[in-house]
Amino acid sequence: MNQYYYMPTRVVMGDGCIGNNSKLFASLGKKALIVTGRHSAKINGSQDDLIKALDAEKIDYLVFDKIKSNPTIAIIYEGAAVAKENKIDFIIAIGGGSPMDAAKGIALLAAQNISEENLFSGSYENKILPMAFVPTTSGTGSEVTKYSILTNDKAQTKTSIATELIFPTIAFLDAKYTDKLSVEVTINTAIDALSHAIEGMLSVKSSMITNALAEKSAQLIMGCVPEMIKAIESPTAPAFSPQTRENLLQASFLAGVVIAQTGTTAVHAMGYSLTYFKHIDHGKANGMLLAEYLRLVEKERPDLSTEILLAMNLDNVDEFKSLIKQLLGEEQISQEEIKQYSEMAIQTANIGNCMVKPTKENIAEMFEQSLRCL
Amino acid sequence: MNQYYYMPTRVVMGDGCIGNNSKLFASLGKKALIVTGRHSAKINGSQDDLIKALDAEKIDYLVFDKIKSNPTIAIIYEGAAVAKENKIDFIIAIGGGSPMDAAKGIALLAAQNISEENLFSGSYENKILPMAFVPTTSGTGSEVTKYSILTNDKAQTKTSIATELIFPTIAFLDAKYTDKLSVEVTINTAIDALSHAIEGMLSVKSSMITNALAEKSAQLIMGCVPEMIKAIESPTAPAFSPQTRENLLQASFLAGVVIAQTGTTAVHAMGYSLTYFKHIDHGKANGMLLAEYLRLVEKERPDLSTEILLAMNLDNVDEFKSLIKQLLGEEQISQEEIKQYSEMAIQTANIGNCMVKPTKENIAEMFEQSLRCL
Repeated sequence: MNQYYYMPTRVVMGDGCIGNNSKLFASLGKKALIVTGRHSAKINGSQDDLIKALDAEKIDYLVFDKIKSNPTIAIIYEGAAVAKENKIDFIIAIGGGSPMDAAKGIALLAAQNISEENLFSGSYENKILPMAFVPTTSGTGSEVTKYSILTNDKAQTKTSIATELIFPTIAFLDAKYTDKLSVEVTINTAIDALSHAIEGMLSVKSSMITNALAEKSAQLIMGCVPEMIKAIESPTAPAFSPQTRENLLQASFLAGVVIAQTGTTAVHAMGYSLTYFKHIDHGKANGMLLAEYLRLVEKERPDLSTEILLAMNLDNVDEFKSLIKQLLGEEQISQEEIKQYSEMAIQTANIGNCMVKPTKENIAEMFEQSLRCL
Repeated sequence: MNQYYYMPTRVVMGDGCIGNNSKLFASLGKKALIVTGRHSAKINGSQDDLIKALDAEKIDYLVFDKIKSNPTIAIIYEGAAVAKENKIDFIIAIGGGSPMDAAKGIALLAAQNISEENLFSGSYENKILPMAFVPTTSGTGSEVTKYSILTNDKAQTKTSIATELIFPTIAFLDAKYTDKLSVEVTINTAIDALSHAIEGMLSVKSSMITNALAEKSAQLIMGCVPEMIKAIESPTAPAFSPQTRENLLQASFLAGVVIAQTGTTAVHAMGYSLTYFKHIDHGKANGMLLAEYLRLVEKERPDLSTEILLAMNLDNVDEFKSLIKQLLGEEQISQEEIKQYSEMAIQTANIGNCMVKPTKENIAEMFEQSLRCL
């Protein structure tokens, strides 16, 4: 089997990178649609910095701030209609995974007509609006992936638009926009990135370059765990140093580059049901399942689990499981839910992507061991 | 200071990757110019595999096999004239750094008129022929860089065309084409890649992603050193396992991605004179200078030298120096040469790229300590 690497997004990093590189926006067009959520981009300073940069380059813009968590198919058609009506040249996304994933769909639908039926078909014309992305959480890595993950009520799960067309043109990584994230969001998103790194190392599409990036990502995140635990234990103390914020943002970027090549595995396949049906945060859902999947991997491919534990500087899966429990807490699941979610997970493409392929029984057992069983 | 990452080349890796992915050539055009040297591509099987793939896709081609070591400016103008005359759609390079660097120049000059005076200006139109690259040595990383390094007799050194335009469109990495390389070429090129990894970690443009790749590259190369020493000591025994060939090719690719972001440092600035005036192989020239530069780094930034030694799994600079001597042997230099080369090196842009900037006296001392002084 051959391996593939492709990640054409230009990445600009560091304090003040939006203002220092405003000329890059001018290369994308004269009128932008800013896709974001209702609040966070206004609070964390990113929207202000962006608008200053656009003003400096005399770029006109419109704000579409209707994106909520777990964006729907309907909202991207709505955003695309706004982009078309207003003759938008390029899309800017500010936010976490939800605004970024929505912005990718909007950029695609603004440039070509795709029916809802064909939205996830992977067969599109070679046309899309350019995109500039500003992540304000450190988890999804969407700023460097070719995935737009949307809530699909027909399929009762999350479904991906996956095409190289939707790699953002430019990503701006400035960790100060993540300063005001709550302890809970910081931890959940960090564990989402950790899950990307680990799942990347367990994918049939992994390669030396993706492993190099995944190992560094896992090391960076694990290096931040002491501050996370301190933040949980002393909720009134100031949380997270600038270096930790920077390390988490970089880790999320590196893990994004990984999954752009490798895709995700059983953990994401299982996690989507916990998010869709039980509204458990995406990063938390994946994180709670990781240790039990690593345990399964250990049985069939101890070389892989050893490499992953080494990158995390941990001795064994139990140590990882207790750490995750400390960071994420617990959730409940019923036998009925386990049955339903296992049946859905085993049918996903993610399972074919696993070096260690779980059976439906393995999946049910992983759910049972990962959540508190009712 | 902000950091930047951009590497848009599509990389296809693994045994048989040219034949398995012949459709990728069809995406580049209908008529190719194959830029290569006189012999190696014919001996190592790469040219045969390539021609089979082109035939399968009904792509017409012409072979331009005039590239020698350290290609000149004249040869790229000659190649470009051939490409224009024959209405070539895209360029294929097969070989080490010399054919690949020449092919980049040819692809650029075939698409636009640039006078020799402006060749290194960095100011070009946004036009170039698409390029597919097949490295057959594991050193230069040119398949994933934006540099074309040419012998410049006017400047009496090597000079780079440096522009994002010349990132190859696709790189095909199949380690079996490196199987027949001599022990000497294998070692010299591996040390060239090691030099890229280490210099990348010492560049003012380094970032977390380049360090992740550089560390993995250095680890992979150092893991191959025992086989290199065995090959030197038992020249009749079969040299280098397939896994070692694969690891060296991957290490060279990763280090190429690194220098595409970071550029090189004092070591390359100094090494160019050894190659231009004394005809010392490029990888060997850099390798012989590396340890003494690390010693200078150790004085001002011990954190950096420690990180690098850790990635190489070595305890100190002396251990590295003795290993390099064992791998590369010795060369001589005169006081007059030291004076001349130091004066040239201190004026290069590479010096400004160093986190630890050597003075002219430092450079002279590094030459003196690295080669046998006459």
